[in-house]
Amino acid sequence: MIAPDVATLLVCVLTDARVAAPALRRFVQAAVRTSFNAITVDGDTSTNDTVLALANGLASNVPLTPDSPDGRRFGAVLAAVMAALADMVVADGEGATRRARITVFGAHGNEDARRVARAVAESQLVKTALHGADPNWGRIVCAAGYAGVRFDPERVSVWIGGVPVLRRGEPAGPTIVRRAASAMRNSAVAIDVDLGARGRQGRATITTSDLSPAYVRFNSAYST
Amino acid sequence: MIAPDVATLLVCVLTDARVAAPALRRFVQAAVRTSFNAITVDGDTSTNDTVLALANGLASNVPLTPDSPDGRRFGAVLAAVMAALADMVVADGEGATRRARITVFGAHGNEDARRVARAVAESQLVKTALHGADPNWGRIVCAAGYAGVRFDPERVSVWIGGVPVLRRGEPAGPTIVRRAASAMRNSAVAIDVDLGARGRQGRATITTSDLSPAYVRFNSAYST
Repeated sequence: MIAPDVATLLVCVLTDARVAAPALRRFVQAAVRTSFNAITVDGDTSTNDTVLALANGLASNVPLTPDSPDGRRFGAVLAAVMAALADMVVADGEGATRRARITVFGAHGNEDARRVARAVAESQLVKTALHGADPNWGRIVCAAGYAGVRFDPERVSVWIGGVPVLRRGEPAGPTIVRRAASAMRNSAVAIDVDLGARGRQGRATITTSDLSPAYVRFNSAYST
Repeated sequence: MIAPDVATLLVCVLTDARVAAPALRRFVQAAVRTSFNAITVDGDTSTNDTVLALANGLASNVPLTPDSPDGRRFGAVLAAVMAALADMVVADGEGATRRARITVFGAHGNEDARRVARAVAESQLVKTALHGADPNWGRIVCAAGYAGVRFDPERVSVWIGGVPVLRRGEPAGPTIVRRAASAMRNSAVAIDVDLGARGRQGRATITTSDLSPAYVRFNSAYST
């Protein structure tokens, strides 16, 4: 969960745009997919997180639809607002000291990429390495390996903070690893994993936080 | 993983029983299912854990088969030896201060029960509650809820250390909860979950350890 002190996640997005309920629902579903459904703090889904979008229509525009140019602009802005809010949720995770944005590509499909990204994002070993700023590509590839998705380990590449620590199964030398370790000390780190499936475009991004002793203390010290 | 200082898990079980390789393989597969494949420390499967069984045949018995009375006795002893070894592995998990033996029953099938037991065993919130000796049945039922298995929450019962903290969806009062909290302070705790599916016999057990600040320190402080 995220911040049990406030019980649960309640998100309200308000707009004065004119948009009918069915169209707004489609906009919200698309935006949630790449924001609130693309973050994880500990994998423990809350039983009552809620995202609400309310449109009062005061702008008196032509009603927005997902396929119109104005609708696409509205959808992009809604997705950007929700992504920013979702990022704040991860930054506020119990005991979090840094975030990682895990992007998996070169997968056979988006669902394969999503499964690998989630396995990496929820691996306790990856999350503790993130806490220790350790560019441990072995733990990343290990989590990818048990995600239940087919790939060839000898075609996998991993970048940490943009630094290539594994190139098609070949580990980088100590100088490059030191650069990656330095990049990991930032409050937000990009971890990119290319599964190397030839000509395949499957792609997904999930944002997670590190696992710190403070997370454990926080969640073991209170009773609910 | 379990104890990276010794690199990985290598298990060798030796017997002087006479048993042909194909039969021994079946004995081992059955024993591994309820021992080494029924434990988890952090859900991060190792890439090179190994269990070997060697039989030199010196006992000169009639070759053992899984279906004979002697074979069943051999299988039961092998399973007991492996279960004891697997329990030691969990007790030796990084930073572990106690173990929980999670048994799920009243499921539609064994595979459903196994998925629920694994979700509960790998939930960071359950594992931190275990560390804090907090009889938090809400976190247990929440993990069961996202295991991807159908059940009726109003028919679920949970026992912690044999104490009924939830009976068919009804939480116990504070006196009983205090008894459960006291039971959780032991080094080994039984957590039993009845999913309440009428007349169904699906059942699984998984043993896990608590998640402590020491786990995080250990896994964030060394580089591999």
